[in-house]
Amino acid sequence: MTSSRLLPPSPEDHAASGGLINRRWLLRSSLAVGSLGLSTNLTRAGQLEVPEWSSKPGLGMSAYGQPSPFEDGVVRSRFDLFPEGIGDGSGVSFTPLEKLAGTITPNGLFFERHHSGIPEIDPDAHKFVIHGMVERSLLFDVESLLKYQMVSRTCFIECAGNSFFNSLGEPQQRTAGEIHGLIGNAEWTGIPLRVLLEEAGIDPRAKWLVAEGADAAKMSRSIPVEKALEGDAMIALYQNGERLRPEQGYPMRLVVPGWQGSMNVKWLRRIKVSDTPFHTKDETSKYTLLQKDGKSRQFTYQMGVKSVITFPSPGMTPAGPGLYNISGLAWSGGGRIKRVEVSADGGRSWSDAVIDAQPLPQAVTRFQQPWQWDGGPLTLMSRATDETGAVQPTREAWYEPYAADQLFHQNSIQSWSVLQDGEVRNVYA
Amino acid sequence: MTSSRLLPPSPEDHAASGGLINRRWLLRSSLAVGSLGLSTNLTRAGQLEVPEWSSKPGLGMSAYGQPSPFEDGVVRSRFDLFPEGIGDGSGVSFTPLEKLAGTITPNGLFFERHHSGIPEIDPDAHKFVIHGMVERSLLFDVESLLKYQMVSRTCFIECAGNSFFNSLGEPQQRTAGEIHGLIGNAEWTGIPLRVLLEEAGIDPRAKWLVAEGADAAKMSRSIPVEKALEGDAMIALYQNGERLRPEQGYPMRLVVPGWQGSMNVKWLRRIKVSDTPFHTKDETSKYTLLQKDGKSRQFTYQMGVKSVITFPSPGMTPAGPGLYNISGLAWSGGGRIKRVEVSADGGRSWSDAVIDAQPLPQAVTRFQQPWQWDGGPLTLMSRATDETGAVQPTREAWYEPYAADQLFHQNSIQSWSVLQDGEVRNVYA
Repeated sequence: MTSSRLLPPSPEDHAASGGLINRRWLLRSSLAVGSLGLSTNLTRAGQLEVPEWSSKPGLGMSAYGQPSPFEDGVVRSRFDLFPEGIGDGSGVSFTPLEKLAGTITPNGLFFERHHSGIPEIDPDAHKFVIHGMVERSLLFDVESLLKYQMVSRTCFIECAGNSFFNSLGEPQQRTAGEIHGLIGNAEWTGIPLRVLLEEAGIDPRAKWLVAEGADAAKMSRSIPVEKALEGDAMIALYQNGERLRPEQGYPMRLVVPGWQGSMNVKWLRRIKVSDTPFHTKDETSKYTLLQKDGKSRQFTYQMGVKSVITFPSPGMTPAGPGLYNISGLAWSGGGRIKRVEVSADGGRSWSDAVIDAQPLPQAVTRFQQPWQWDGGPLTLMSRATDETGAVQPTREAWYEPYAADQLFHQNSIQSWSVLQDGEVRNVYA
Repeated sequence: MTSSRLLPPSPEDHAASGGLINRRWLLRSSLAVGSLGLSTNLTRAGQLEVPEWSSKPGLGMSAYGQPSPFEDGVVRSRFDLFPEGIGDGSGVSFTPLEKLAGTITPNGLFFERHHSGIPEIDPDAHKFVIHGMVERSLLFDVESLLKYQMVSRTCFIECAGNSFFNSLGEPQQRTAGEIHGLIGNAEWTGIPLRVLLEEAGIDPRAKWLVAEGADAAKMSRSIPVEKALEGDAMIALYQNGERLRPEQGYPMRLVVPGWQGSMNVKWLRRIKVSDTPFHTKDETSKYTLLQKDGKSRQFTYQMGVKSVITFPSPGMTPAGPGLYNISGLAWSGGGRIKRVEVSADGGRSWSDAVIDAQPLPQAVTRFQQPWQWDGGPLTLMSRATDETGAVQPTREAWYEPYAADQLFHQNSIQSWSVLQDGEVRNVYA
């Protein structure tokens, strides 16, 4: 019983400086990274000690399963936006991105953003109305919606304020999830909004919808009618196969793939059809971007192309020099992720990371990049490009048009500084 | 505020007898089914009563979310295979297929099949070994495996004994999930087994692997080496983005897409490489199929092409005559689902159902079929075909080669009898 005998890559296997390894080396050798960490404590080859848990009957079956007690540190991280008391449901809880793998966000860990907490809705009493510029107003209860033919779509929902800590002057020392975890990726199942609008008989002069939630904050957002009639807007009732969780809009929410999180109105109670936008509080005093010229950008629907390295990241540190697998997530409201590049020298040289074979549009894509760390300090970055050609900007370029402290649509490149001892810190590089 | 004015389909819109509607009607009219169930109790158009939960701050955020209390009936259904006491973990719990939508099975509801309960494994103490006909035996702990480059794959795992109730002489009156729910579909993330075997240096004469679990039953299955070297076998550590649940093999399991559930060995502790199969108890006294000629089929890896209608189904009943959406699930160990047909006249005429636009190989596919029920008794069936051309057999044809009471690989067509009052019953039609 021995450790792996993986040979280190030769000079021509390096894809970029800082130890980034060419993927051809991986393909050629059919070997993955990390095997230098194997241990060798068998008494003799092929013989394992029999642990106590293999020697007695185990636990019984359960009605609804839960994670292992050993995973009790894998939780959402709560942050109260208004700690001085407008109800303890006004804030966010971050998805622990750095502790997950693959692309689906499990329902228990999908981020939260509430403006006045989670309403305790009795699904049998909840009503949803389509009215305004329609031939006939329509009233639905949950039972009537469940009868429709449904569609399923895997896509992300990202809070427009995601990564808001990086709008502060000094880089905050938080985990990848606590900085960028206001995003989740799920299979949503529901009814195309187009179907319901056409059933109501939408007025040809109608240009806008307003969607309103049943929470006390009455989250309200104006949405161009095309996102429903020609697009992919959906009334979702299921998330990852089961009914929506209360914190995700139970019993129904709007899903507008690729657009600002708050437009995916939770606890949906009505959609009013109109010929003008509504300029609600949630699209004037909030969710707008003040520019240096004193004007604000309003109705900035689409979330930008973005990526973040989740390993290494703060708290997820390499243990000494060796071969590692850099891993992270990329997404774009503009469509499919086409390319993710990784730099290990602060952006001077870049290597194309391996991405999922078939990225889905407006969905999270996993990227990975082999890395041979020599133990010295360096700065890691990732840079995503989507199928429209949009490229994730540097922090400096992102801020160029905006007034100080603007925080919405913050999709700039994240830099992680890896120190000599492996500690990883958030830096503005 | 009015009900929908959907016109009923005209005679040429019927796809098959029993009220199955041509999908062209849906596409032409851009309308989905079910809207006849709308109610009309608004005081005036556009005005909704404000429910109590919209008038006060709601609940706070949480570390790990749970389903709504109103969904507490959506649970796995437990069935003890040996009720007279070999430990309460020896049995199955069924996924409630009829209460779910989309294709992903949420982790809390993924079916269970344990042979001696769930071992309570400390992940820091768990070891996994590859040994036998290899150049070097390799020992892994969880930490070392987490360093590897990973792949993600959405596929089903189905117990070879799924649908075993339909092997009994009389049809059992149970829900769709309690009959066919020993299947789940998830995004699995882990390390290709090929990578680890090549690192160990597999002997060219090796033909078989045996995979063994760390449960007290020591589930052990022989697997042809090709499923690893040329195929898609994986050591999975994550399910739907988070670490495996204890009942799904935490901290690691084998995933062999499309093959018998028990071959996807949970709590994986070793893989031994050999030139012969191992004929373990789990592939001789169990998981074999006795034929009429007295011989048994052994090593029947691949799960057959299969489908089941989840609405209507027992307990999920239509409420009087009207338009409904027949919905169900289809899958095949042979590859992608290519076609699902639905019959509403006991198999005399069939209509092509709408299936997911891009079915994934060895993954669950959703099918839907509009249905105008006239309120009379009839028999519903679904019949799946996969990309290899394999067609789901009738119950009679399925049993033809086998001795009485054989229950593994039961993939025959499920017939649901819809009675005059809407009650749905399991029948052998």
